[in-house]
Amino acid sequence: MTAYDDLTAHIAEYHDLLCVLNTLKWDMRTMMPAGGAGERGKQLATLSKLAKSIFVSDETARLLDAAEAEIAGADADSYHVRALRQTRDAYEIQRRIPADLVGRIAALGAQSEAVWAKAKDENDFASFKPYLKQMLALNIELAEAIGYADHPFDALIRQFEPGMTAARLGQIFAELKAGILPLVERIVAVDAPLPLNLWEAEYDLAAQKRLCQEMATLIGFDFERGRLDTAPHPFEISFTRDDVRITTRYDANYLPMSLFATLHEAGHGLYEQNIAPELTRTALTADFLGQYAVGGASFGAHEFSSRLWENQIGRSREFWRLHFSRLRDYFSEQMAAADAELFYRAVNRVRPSLIRVEADEVTYNLHIMLRTEIEMGLLEGAIAVDDLPEIWNAKMQEYLGLTPPDDRRGVLQDVHWSFGGFGSFPTYTIGNIIAAQALAAAHAQMPDLAAKLAEGDYQTLLTWLRENIYRHGRAYSTDELLTRVTSEGLNTAPLLDYLERKYSDLYGLN
Amino acid sequence: MTAYDDLTAHIAEYHDLLCVLNTLKWDMRTMMPAGGAGERGKQLATLSKLAKSIFVSDETARLLDAAEAEIAGADADSYHVRALRQTRDAYEIQRRIPADLVGRIAALGAQSEAVWAKAKDENDFASFKPYLKQMLALNIELAEAIGYADHPFDALIRQFEPGMTAARLGQIFAELKAGILPLVERIVAVDAPLPLNLWEAEYDLAAQKRLCQEMATLIGFDFERGRLDTAPHPFEISFTRDDVRITTRYDANYLPMSLFATLHEAGHGLYEQNIAPELTRTALTADFLGQYAVGGASFGAHEFSSRLWENQIGRSREFWRLHFSRLRDYFSEQMAAADAELFYRAVNRVRPSLIRVEADEVTYNLHIMLRTEIEMGLLEGAIAVDDLPEIWNAKMQEYLGLTPPDDRRGVLQDVHWSFGGFGSFPTYTIGNIIAAQALAAAHAQMPDLAAKLAEGDYQTLLTWLRENIYRHGRAYSTDELLTRVTSEGLNTAPLLDYLERKYSDLYGLN
Repeated sequence: MTAYDDLTAHIAEYHDLLCVLNTLKWDMRTMMPAGGAGERGKQLATLSKLAKSIFVSDETARLLDAAEAEIAGADADSYHVRALRQTRDAYEIQRRIPADLVGRIAALGAQSEAVWAKAKDENDFASFKPYLKQMLALNIELAEAIGYADHPFDALIRQFEPGMTAARLGQIFAELKAGILPLVERIVAVDAPLPLNLWEAEYDLAAQKRLCQEMATLIGFDFERGRLDTAPHPFEISFTRDDVRITTRYDANYLPMSLFATLHEAGHGLYEQNIAPELTRTALTADFLGQYAVGGASFGAHEFSSRLWENQIGRSREFWRLHFSRLRDYFSEQMAAADAELFYRAVNRVRPSLIRVEADEVTYNLHIMLRTEIEMGLLEGAIAVDDLPEIWNAKMQEYLGLTPPDDRRGVLQDVHWSFGGFGSFPTYTIGNIIAAQALAAAHAQMPDLAAKLAEGDYQTLLTWLRENIYRHGRAYSTDELLTRVTSEGLNTAPLLDYLERKYSDLYGLN
Repeated sequence: MTAYDDLTAHIAEYHDLLCVLNTLKWDMRTMMPAGGAGERGKQLATLSKLAKSIFVSDETARLLDAAEAEIAGADADSYHVRALRQTRDAYEIQRRIPADLVGRIAALGAQSEAVWAKAKDENDFASFKPYLKQMLALNIELAEAIGYADHPFDALIRQFEPGMTAARLGQIFAELKAGILPLVERIVAVDAPLPLNLWEAEYDLAAQKRLCQEMATLIGFDFERGRLDTAPHPFEISFTRDDVRITTRYDANYLPMSLFATLHEAGHGLYEQNIAPELTRTALTADFLGQYAVGGASFGAHEFSSRLWENQIGRSREFWRLHFSRLRDYFSEQMAAADAELFYRAVNRVRPSLIRVEADEVTYNLHIMLRTEIEMGLLEGAIAVDDLPEIWNAKMQEYLGLTPPDDRRGVLQDVHWSFGGFGSFPTYTIGNIIAAQALAAAHAQMPDLAAKLAEGDYQTLLTWLRENIYRHGRAYSTDELLTRVTSEGLNTAPLLDYLERKYSDLYGLN
């Protein structure tokens, strides 16, 4: 297998550079002193350019050709063939993207993000408009370079969720809306404040840190191959499966902030830590199109793991029945008048709200649909940037029954469009869908799983996830992965079932 | 200046990669979970190889030639000309070093360091011998590749202290021995234990951390452009002047450990933070021969700054007269029976000892001379590896009047030879010499400096050091720098004066 080995060695070094880029980004967001930002930006730019020049090179083309010739006829399901195909796909797309376009998007993004931040602070959409128009134009240019059959959105989402299209999302969203909108209505009709507000007390930050560390350990995050730090916007990032960094943020009053961000990022981390070791430094643990070292079939598939551990496990009644006493060990005064059931209800209250990142499990997907539909409209020219605030507010009224009092709490709330992340929002909802499918499949295959989870045995689920999903890294697409596990591709029914079951019980509906 | 600008842009990207390597090394020693070591090693190797291939390239040669032609006749003292010369020198030497030699040294070093660690633990020099023999042979090969006129040591020390030679060190050591050996004898004759042992109490680690942060700030370390973290072997490393990381280590009983390591590393950090901004990303803030982003004329010149702030300032009576109350604020119980004078004496006690890293200011240089003389002997073949323990012990007896009870506390104590750092030991002593010269010059030029330091004004000294030394980065050699400031090159007299003055006062000699 000489030609394949040569390609593998070349790709391994490219992969190393992507891991190094991740290290720089992690440091930038957790450790770097403020003064370091300017030069760090240059270091990132140099290394990104260099990494790209190594990947999009005559050498890669030559090695790819030779390896493909050598491996022709091999098992199409083998990691070897899969790695080769991923590399070829990314190479062909990267080649089509003009060398300067990514740089122009990055340069505009840096400017535009600063303008957005100011515009949000000052509730001044007009000042952000010209930048958003330029960013939209560049993203349309990017979509044309990547190529698509039906809709420019298809090209952009391919960067995050290969196989997904605008048309298919339309179908998925229709199914979700049909299930979620009536559910929200039924909940709103009966929702009432809890008898006790837990978030007026103060929760010592050092104790929160210890608790978060303990919770991440509890669900199986391996601190021999990972760390938990603090970041203003929590994230997970890995430098191979052997070094996975997760972050959280702390609010002295609002304990769920650190707790659920930790479970969420630890969920991402579990994916990375449980990828098969032999995939390290290969195309199956990096997104060569996005030039980002990450395992998992797609961004949606990665999000499945974070949402499964955060929501389906971490916000379950069983979880808090078992672990509420830990909370009380750390915060005996603050939790004196609470019990497991109250805490469970406090972290699962459903209320239509203006801000996506504060939304509950049920309404969250509505925020995503709203954004995605607007992105599609912008890209196809059906929506003008000038009309965005109006359209945003109309959709908020339609989906959530609320009208933002200002653009700051409306169209200006998310950073994504300022740096050009078009096409990424749906991955959050896709993650929710996969999480429900995967957990349903696990329960179906292991009838005693519910009992084990209720006893605090998370290793059984983790092992199942590792064997069925995690270990494959990016070898299979989301649909392939799901089909291997559930004998069907992406399907909204289990998510709708899960929400219906959990919340009709919690709110005593029916 | 087109050609020069082209070279500068090329070099800036190479410099970026060296800063990235530093980031990886910092993370490895402060943050990385244990499991990350294996893959991090590969990432470092890939990036080092890539950086070297960018520097030792036809492109560098072409750009260098063009820039030299363009700049011919420019002021030989200008930063431009200096940067060009540094780049040319490093390029010519790097070209002469066989591509695989550095890799062979690194590979053997990784193995050999592990063997050394075990040999030290088990007091078993015999098991380390074959590795040391191989490492010596590779270093002789390296010396031949670099080239030298008189002594192979001259080639190796050129990596750390350009301009220094074995012959010149022989002269320097003779002068130092003539001053230090009798001083040690006089001190030993009158030394007695202090009336109070401060290092039996326990010093809270969190309080130590706050104190260290405060002390680094006190002498001018800028935390907007730097951090202080924990590392088992404290070090300073920078990713440009705008992001300088220092580290220390903590011993619950032995407060001076964290305190003086912090002042030492902050002293290194002050050098980096005060280099002229226009030298960022140029040959004047990196050692292109060692492929290491570091400012300062040489390793010795860098060590001058750490030793000046740690010893000449941080271990002075004036310093503790002023700041002992801070210590007592943090550790009122532990310091209840102490006063500034006792503390001053406790951190300046002179006693011949077996271990270099525990040695005081006076005997420290003897440990360096011993090692350097042995290295020279090994390289010229006058000393055989087999005879090392005997020779080590004989020299210990000669210089310090002690015989190590075992090799662990003798020839096996330092890691340096295991990874091949031949030629680096003398930079510690050169740093001590420069520190004394520089501070003497500052006092001579600013008659009120002593009064300012006694009042706790460190900014005056810092400004003088910035204007006269720090800001130039690597533009001048150690001798040139000193000549600009004191009208003579390296000179041992001020160090001997300083030691004589401080310790004859402290011990009531004469």
